[in-house]
Amino acid sequence: MSKTLFDIVSDFPYHEEEPVRFAETLKSYHAFKVQGIDATLGYIPNTLVQSITWPKDHWMIDSAAISLINPPDNAASTRTRIIHDALNRMIETGYTNILKGWRNERFPVYGPGGDVILEIERSASALFGIVTSGVQMLCYVKDAKDGIRLWIAKRSMQKQTYPGMLDCTAAGALSVGESPRSAMILEATEEASIGREVIESGMRYVGAISYFHMKESSIALGTDGVSTAVLLPEVEYLYELQLDEGVVPRPKDSEVEDFRLWNMDQVLDALGRGVFKPNSAVVVIDFFIRHGVISPETEPMYEEIIRRLHRRLPFPTAVWSI
Amino acid sequence: MSKTLFDIVSDFPYHEEEPVRFAETLKSYHAFKVQGIDATLGYIPNTLVQSITWPKDHWMIDSAAISLINPPDNAASTRTRIIHDALNRMIETGYTNILKGWRNERFPVYGPGGDVILEIERSASALFGIVTSGVQMLCYVKDAKDGIRLWIAKRSMQKQTYPGMLDCTAAGALSVGESPRSAMILEATEEASIGREVIESGMRYVGAISYFHMKESSIALGTDGVSTAVLLPEVEYLYELQLDEGVVPRPKDSEVEDFRLWNMDQVLDALGRGVFKPNSAVVVIDFFIRHGVISPETEPMYEEIIRRLHRRLPFPTAVWSI
Repeated sequence: MSKTLFDIVSDFPYHEEEPVRFAETLKSYHAFKVQGIDATLGYIPNTLVQSITWPKDHWMIDSAAISLINPPDNAASTRTRIIHDALNRMIETGYTNILKGWRNERFPVYGPGGDVILEIERSASALFGIVTSGVQMLCYVKDAKDGIRLWIAKRSMQKQTYPGMLDCTAAGALSVGESPRSAMILEATEEASIGREVIESGMRYVGAISYFHMKESSIALGTDGVSTAVLLPEVEYLYELQLDEGVVPRPKDSEVEDFRLWNMDQVLDALGRGVFKPNSAVVVIDFFIRHGVISPETEPMYEEIIRRLHRRLPFPTAVWSI
Repeated sequence: MSKTLFDIVSDFPYHEEEPVRFAETLKSYHAFKVQGIDATLGYIPNTLVQSITWPKDHWMIDSAAISLINPPDNAASTRTRIIHDALNRMIETGYTNILKGWRNERFPVYGPGGDVILEIERSASALFGIVTSGVQMLCYVKDAKDGIRLWIAKRSMQKQTYPGMLDCTAAGALSVGESPRSAMILEATEEASIGREVIESGMRYVGAISYFHMKESSIALGTDGVSTAVLLPEVEYLYELQLDEGVVPRPKDSEVEDFRLWNMDQVLDALGRGVFKPNSAVVVIDFFIRHGVISPETEPMYEEIIRRLHRRLPFPTAVWSI
């Protein structure tokens, strides 16, 4: 059956709407905290908390939370090392996906003041349920004859995640130290071979979306064989670039198989078939809203979709001036 | 000092962001419930709960909630009568604003299934902190020379609420039994004298906004002289109508003093001076977002403004097919 746009944006239950289901769902996770910092930084599946040993000099665990004991030097690098040791124990215990995906690329975890308080290897971020951030750009052509057409990328079959699925024109995750704008320019030149000058003069920041997806995944398989969905709270900084008909994105590195220029009906159809990478599908939906492709008169869940694309995340996030 | 757009959309604290301030603020209120219905329907200031007697055969009160005991006939009309009796006791106790504003116009309170489970006289709705709904329309003219200009109404000095302040072209609250579309058409013909044919052919539904404002008000003055802000969770169904230059809205009933056709700078300036009725100001801001008058490149709080205009209210709301 075809997916609705609402299916695509559906995410973690809302405390305000379904307090019982919200509480029930959270019971499968431990809040991830750092001692002395008044915030929940992520959610770790109970299956994972129970699978490895967490040395008592570095970790405090109760029924609802697991807290990293703040090291005496109060340094982000020391906290990062303590996390790293835990990852090694996970790998030894059989969470080999972490190792397979290991890229030596670290994601920042922000405290309530906007500082980076620790870093986590990208391939393990989902296990801690931390907020990850990314940039995504949709390039489009607009003319009187065909209206708006989007340059859609098809991911290479060699990609570790979501091989062969459809994607925005250019996209990437924000590692430690990367700012949205410069990361976006880099991705667009690297992935889509668009000239730097075209990008810098035409690229427009059009806002961020935030949501809290759940992903059924074998990576959170407990020793008892029971798997818990991992939590993916995300912030995506979105950019647009209107291209002239003659400018054609082309694959450059091995990330993208091809680019196709699709009209709105083709894109809507692909969304319904579920062939877009999930966090690219939501970017396309936000584009539809901004460009009036969907409106409250055509989409019954219009307001709810806007709400879910701008979810207030229960975690500290980065503060960028863009 | 001038108000920012963010000041205008600021509302009740968010549990996800400020759990301590959220809990502290709620301590001044009792949740308003109906026995057997699993939902909070509103928030009543403690000062008010303590000011009058609540007969034990109709009300249960604990430290955090006040619940209407469901009558044996399980009828909305009986619950409405029990509320009505409480309003009478409030009036006798000195809450004379209820009486001054009395219009024999009732607001519906919805249960989780979307049914009207009781009704509350309009002038008392803020004391119960129930969700109220309204419709608002902005009429505009668009041309190459001046860009977009909005038809702004100035409220009559005789209005009970917000006399002399600026308003959308036409607006009104939704009483029991009114649907958004027909209420909007009625308000636009009645208040702005726009021809029914022009309205019906050109009026476009552009989505709803929802927010949770607080209003410092002497109406929640306790017997101890301490006043608590009343809570105003609202849903506003928004409409737009592009008018030809020659079509001029004119006051018809006594609600509006005049209409002025203002460009975006004039409207922005008036927002900054705080001369718009608060729940009209948010509608204008939503218009700015939809029409690209403000963008993330010009407004640093862009995403937060969108989030606050689409707040997930912690109460059941109406379900309309529009």
